[in-house]
Amino acid sequence: MTAVNLNQKLAMFSEHWSPKIVAAFNGHDVMVVKVMGEFVWHSHPDTDDFFYVLQGRVVIQMKAGDVILEAGDLYVVPKGVEHRPVAEVESHLLLIEPQGVPNTGDAGTAAKKEKL
Amino acid sequence: MTAVNLNQKLAMFSEHWSPKIVAAFNGHDVMVVKVMGEFVWHSHPDTDDFFYVLQGRVVIQMKAGDVILEAGDLYVVPKGVEHRPVAEVESHLLLIEPQGVPNTGDAGTAAKKEKL
Repeated sequence: MTAVNLNQKLAMFSEHWSPKIVAAFNGHDVMVVKVMGEFVWHSHPDTDDFFYVLQGRVVIQMKAGDVILEAGDLYVVPKGVEHRPVAEVESHLLLIEPQGVPNTGDAGTAAKKEKL
Repeated sequence: MTAVNLNQKLAMFSEHWSPKIVAAFNGHDVMVVKVMGEFVWHSHPDTDDFFYVLQGRVVIQMKAGDVILEAGDLYVVPKGVEHRPVAEVESHLLLIEPQGVPNTGDAGTAAKKEKL
């Protein structure tokens, strides 16, 4: 029964695009992730995709246009909407997704979500 | 289709314990709130309660003990667990709750959740 400090969790790993589970909330994984470079285009047919930027700058590319997120910015990609996160500098994010949802939208290519 | 800057949203109001909805996520309200002083003891029988501290210091009192949250700290109060948030300094939080859930656990005493 202690607080989860996100920076402390982020200091425990260095790899990119590999979300780490730090808490559970209503059947969702609450995760931190470090990102840099381009992710793959993907969508989640059954869930919205929650992004909150803790550090850095992330562009969420979508067919309808880009959303630019800096530290302190939040964006929810609606379910079914194709998107690609891109970061030119290493960036740290808080993510929330239903438990078991593959981060690429495809179990075959998804990163394993490890608990920290 | 733009990012939600949480500090910008927080600058739009000053009252305490009155959550403002800034985004929707999988049937949940994503909210910011300013708090100071003692809230009421309450619980949510059907939902976990997500707290992330953006600024300040909040103590989540529970029967089993206190959890102290500083900026950058996150805590999820499990559903059904009685708790009382207390802040000695004005603190800013990111909250997530299912749409329509009263913040006091009781529709009669709950603050109206306004969209910002």
